[in-house]
Amino acid sequence: MAWFGRHGDGAEHRPRGRGREPQRVERVGLDDLTPDPIAVLGQAAYLQLGHFEALSRAASTAPTLEAKGSLSAAAGKVLAKHSAIIAELDSRGADSSAAMSVHTAAIDRYFEMVQGADWYEDLASIYFTSGLLDDFFGRITGNLDGGAKISASISSDAGSEDIVQLLADGMSKDPRLASRLAVWGRRLVGDTLLMARSALPHPVNPPAGEARIEPVLTELMADHTRRMDRLGLTA
Amino acid sequence: MAWFGRHGDGAEHRPRGRGREPQRVERVGLDDLTPDPIAVLGQAAYLQLGHFEALSRAASTAPTLEAKGSLSAAAGKVLAKHSAIIAELDSRGADSSAAMSVHTAAIDRYFEMVQGADWYEDLASIYFTSGLLDDFFGRITGNLDGGAKISASISSDAGSEDIVQLLADGMSKDPRLASRLAVWGRRLVGDTLLMARSALPHPVNPPAGEARIEPVLTELMADHTRRMDRLGLTA
Repeated sequence: MAWFGRHGDGAEHRPRGRGREPQRVERVGLDDLTPDPIAVLGQAAYLQLGHFEALSRAASTAPTLEAKGSLSAAAGKVLAKHSAIIAELDSRGADSSAAMSVHTAAIDRYFEMVQGADWYEDLASIYFTSGLLDDFFGRITGNLDGGAKISASISSDAGSEDIVQLLADGMSKDPRLASRLAVWGRRLVGDTLLMARSALPHPVNPPAGEARIEPVLTELMADHTRRMDRLGLTA
Repeated sequence: MAWFGRHGDGAEHRPRGRGREPQRVERVGLDDLTPDPIAVLGQAAYLQLGHFEALSRAASTAPTLEAKGSLSAAAGKVLAKHSAIIAELDSRGADSSAAMSVHTAAIDRYFEMVQGADWYEDLASIYFTSGLLDDFFGRITGNLDGGAKISASISSDAGSEDIVQLLADGMSKDPRLASRLAVWGRRLVGDTLLMARSALPHPVNPPAGEARIEPVLTELMADHTRRMDRLGLTA
């Protein structure tokens, strides 16, 4: 959970010749990578709105009433995350619309790119992209001063069990769907990592800074692979 | 609020020659018109899902972040009504999916008919149709045994103030929009009254029964006219 706060991440990437000063290295790492709270919360809020729209679209085109019900309920949970982030922005004295507006163009473009060719690909997009981004934003908001509560809200589950079940049902009926979703799941991850990456400030000291970001992205990739595995898809 | 329970509504339509027995007439009226609770709740639940879908579609195509925010919040409130009705069906031992499934074909067709030609017509549809139907279902569920709580939930406001404001803003920018919405508001009402009417059982004694339903529909029409007035549209 607490990668940015974890001691040692930065140390691996220190020049080998230097002495052991993990505390100091860590502090530099945090200064370097901790983003502006309002910018991060604005991005997270608008991303939740995008996930909400994708889920409610999937609910409205669901083939069964049960699927419609569980996807609508999931949409409601995602909307609650969005509202919690807006409340957090309000409580920090920020104009939440202004905080989101700087991100709308990039995020709208992102959601167009991860829109699937059919209902199942859309479901897979929701599962993979919200999984990765909620992990990520849950973690970085957890590093903000007073961010524990909003981090817990962003990290909370929003119906992933039901979505996995719907995808598993689809694959059991159509074996070719699995290979299609495996390709789709791999295609999504690049744009999604870039979306996560964009929340982090450009490091003051580029090569060393990027090296510190690398393990973060590696860990997100590993979590993505676990989600692929959960669906029985080889990542 | 309590038309079905209100004394006297039925009396107006009694043959003039009979004596004054309002209590007895009223009881016959209720027996005749009180629908099956599970059927009504199933219809109300699926209608809320339709309103939710319309609102979340309007949110996703909203021209401003503020509109997107308020429509998403309204969608969340409508989803809460849906969930409350599902919980009510559960607590009455009903299979909520089965209770909704008998209504899906008619309701899907209805929502196709009331879909507007653009975003503003869609907003107007949401305002007029959910206004009328929430009034109606709030009232008939209020007459069910133990229906007070679910009636209050269905009757509760779900962002109508914001929708009225968005429509007013649109009309102030484009004066022709008002005449278009006036026509649209009149067109919607017929299908919406039929949707409400379909929740009531066919009276055992057709002409007298229909006469008792008439004031109900008249009252719904009057409320619709008030909503038109609120937008400055001549009904």
